[in-house]
Amino acid sequence: MSKVIAINAGSSSLKFQLFEMPSENVITKGLIERIGLNDGIFNITVNGEKIKEVRDIPDHEIAVKLLLDKLTTLGIIKSLDEIEGIGHRVVHGGEVFDDSVLITEEVLKKIEALSELAPLHNPANVTGIKAFKQVLPNVPAVAVFDTAFHQTMPESSFLYSLPYEYYEKYGIRKYGFHGTSHKFVSQRAAEMLGRPIEQLRLISCHLGNGASIAAIEGGKSIDTSMGFTPLAGITMGTRSGNIDPALIPYIMEKTGKTADEVLEILNKKSGLLGLSGFSSDLRDIEAKAAEGNDRAELALEVFASRIHKYIGLYAARMNGVDAIIFTAGIGENSDVIRGKVLRGLEFMGVYWDPSLNKVRGKEAFINYPHSPVKVMVIPTNEEVMIARDVVRLAK
Amino acid sequence: MSKVIAINAGSSSLKFQLFEMPSENVITKGLIERIGLNDGIFNITVNGEKIKEVRDIPDHEIAVKLLLDKLTTLGIIKSLDEIEGIGHRVVHGGEVFDDSVLITEEVLKKIEALSELAPLHNPANVTGIKAFKQVLPNVPAVAVFDTAFHQTMPESSFLYSLPYEYYEKYGIRKYGFHGTSHKFVSQRAAEMLGRPIEQLRLISCHLGNGASIAAIEGGKSIDTSMGFTPLAGITMGTRSGNIDPALIPYIMEKTGKTADEVLEILNKKSGLLGLSGFSSDLRDIEAKAAEGNDRAELALEVFASRIHKYIGLYAARMNGVDAIIFTAGIGENSDVIRGKVLRGLEFMGVYWDPSLNKVRGKEAFINYPHSPVKVMVIPTNEEVMIARDVVRLAK
Repeated sequence: MSKVIAINAGSSSLKFQLFEMPSENVITKGLIERIGLNDGIFNITVNGEKIKEVRDIPDHEIAVKLLLDKLTTLGIIKSLDEIEGIGHRVVHGGEVFDDSVLITEEVLKKIEALSELAPLHNPANVTGIKAFKQVLPNVPAVAVFDTAFHQTMPESSFLYSLPYEYYEKYGIRKYGFHGTSHKFVSQRAAEMLGRPIEQLRLISCHLGNGASIAAIEGGKSIDTSMGFTPLAGITMGTRSGNIDPALIPYIMEKTGKTADEVLEILNKKSGLLGLSGFSSDLRDIEAKAAEGNDRAELALEVFASRIHKYIGLYAARMNGVDAIIFTAGIGENSDVIRGKVLRGLEFMGVYWDPSLNKVRGKEAFINYPHSPVKVMVIPTNEEVMIARDVVRLAK
Repeated sequence: MSKVIAINAGSSSLKFQLFEMPSENVITKGLIERIGLNDGIFNITVNGEKIKEVRDIPDHEIAVKLLLDKLTTLGIIKSLDEIEGIGHRVVHGGEVFDDSVLITEEVLKKIEALSELAPLHNPANVTGIKAFKQVLPNVPAVAVFDTAFHQTMPESSFLYSLPYEYYEKYGIRKYGFHGTSHKFVSQRAAEMLGRPIEQLRLISCHLGNGASIAAIEGGKSIDTSMGFTPLAGITMGTRSGNIDPALIPYIMEKTGKTADEVLEILNKKSGLLGLSGFSSDLRDIEAKAAEGNDRAELALEVFASRIHKYIGLYAARMNGVDAIIFTAGIGENSDVIRGKVLRGLEFMGVYWDPSLNKVRGKEAFINYPHSPVKVMVIPTNEEVMIARDVVRLAK
């Protein structure tokens, strides 16, 4: 038995989850917020009880020290020696990393170099890695990339129809994200189906505030809806997904904004928020739609229809599908969206049961027994995937 | 019997086709090129013989006079009185025109106002309309819009996931193009299938240098791959189709280009040309691919896979499909592309016959007789659609 900690570092936050392995029991988890700002917040759950403490947390290294200190003083672990590995979520692995990797000096440099592709995320991930390295220099650390699972996409899936030298010179291609989640649910689906993953064609719908869909054939991602960045693909909470690219110069001209300002609107003011006009939170939108709000209903329809169409698209990609998976906040909890997405897929063998579809937040099959295509709800667990990779690579 | 002329006016060109109606016989056709430039060229086909004449053609009005003069002096018609109507192709009808329309002063003003949405095309179309109005003021003229057929799309198809006010204020939505072609082949498909179009779900693939795909249910377009502009959708000869919108600011930053310059690259240097590196002409690319050129093969694969995926997408949109139609230069002539597009659609009932697929440029079914989904090659004819609308509206 060993203890492994999974870390997701943001620019001013640090999310953590401590696992006992190989049992995969969660010993504790929590979130450190407002690092480097006034009134930092340390949140931790111990034996089901939530503890919150407000105090100055000037930087990530101090946040890590605080975390480790709490783990011992709260009696969660006896000694730091019990921690046998650290797993760091890293957003962008580019074409360099097609799997998780033990972090060496060289690996760290490569992750830093990839910041160009993920300027908002990789630098924060690197800060987290360095902070742990400083405080626990002898504990093996593993990087787990959001993009790695999608590195199996063939060239015809990942290349844009742009001048080819843009790929060679600037790394412009589809990378895809949410890979750890798509990998987790696809593996879990194979277990639930009792079939070897090598024989399965799966469509995984990760529907959270960010949302992406992946076509997974034989356990490998062969296509996904996000692109060079997480802006592409389907409608999301505040992101537009795909639009006519000619709209960027058009919106610039109409509004007098710069390209970067328009991009900001596509990332922060579009999607469900832009369509509904009042919220990016699907729960608010469902509530208003139930009251008869037209724009809320429109937002639901657009969101669901984009997902519906991607299911057809990826079924064509694999010449059929064995199971469709819904995961993440919306995928796990919204029977309204799942129902709208699944309407009218009988042509490809999808027969789903509205009463089973009422499930929230737990594993379930929601298809009729006779349905050739299975439809599954599977709560995602990126943290346990990180912990598993630590055990696999830190030995 | 009456004679009707169909016109497609570009900024420096005028394409014409003279029909006898209702027989729809083509009496003559031709192209006037380099209007307003040095050495204008007048091309006309009379009784199967091509005549070419080089001479100065300073503007569209003189081009029209020259055309009408030739029609009589070459003995094609006895008198201009025989021309009972003129049909003008107009690219953009916005949300104003959901059908062809008899051109009045008011209509002409509206077409001019829509130039904002099609700055390269509508002004040229207007020039053509005005030139004919000047020379043949008493002959009824009809405008036939590329966008009109797609005006039946529901809001959930045509709205982007952008701030809703962009639709209200700036008309930002999906319009779709090639409507006259999609309408023609869908009507012809219903005839060839011997079934009422109201009962059919059709996917029409218009694959030329520009290319778009439409989902046509009950004779009405309910979705299409082009968008606010003809840049969107699938890979084309020189156009990128859909890309991650975040790439525009990224390419601007990497190359130091303006948004408009990047847009120019997406329109003129991308697509098959960008991928292959040597040509936008599919025939060149097929030839090089047959010689083992990797980049040529890649371009074919990307092009075909995008179309393949849209077929799945639109099948999902209509919960299945009765027939898939290939039309326009590539769709009518390239068995290589059709073959690659159709690979692996058995899951939705598409079984096609490689020997029938060898057909070029004529109407044919290329599915096996037992295939639930029919696959058809139908040469498009936008000009005859224009002539039909002239007869319908000019009475």
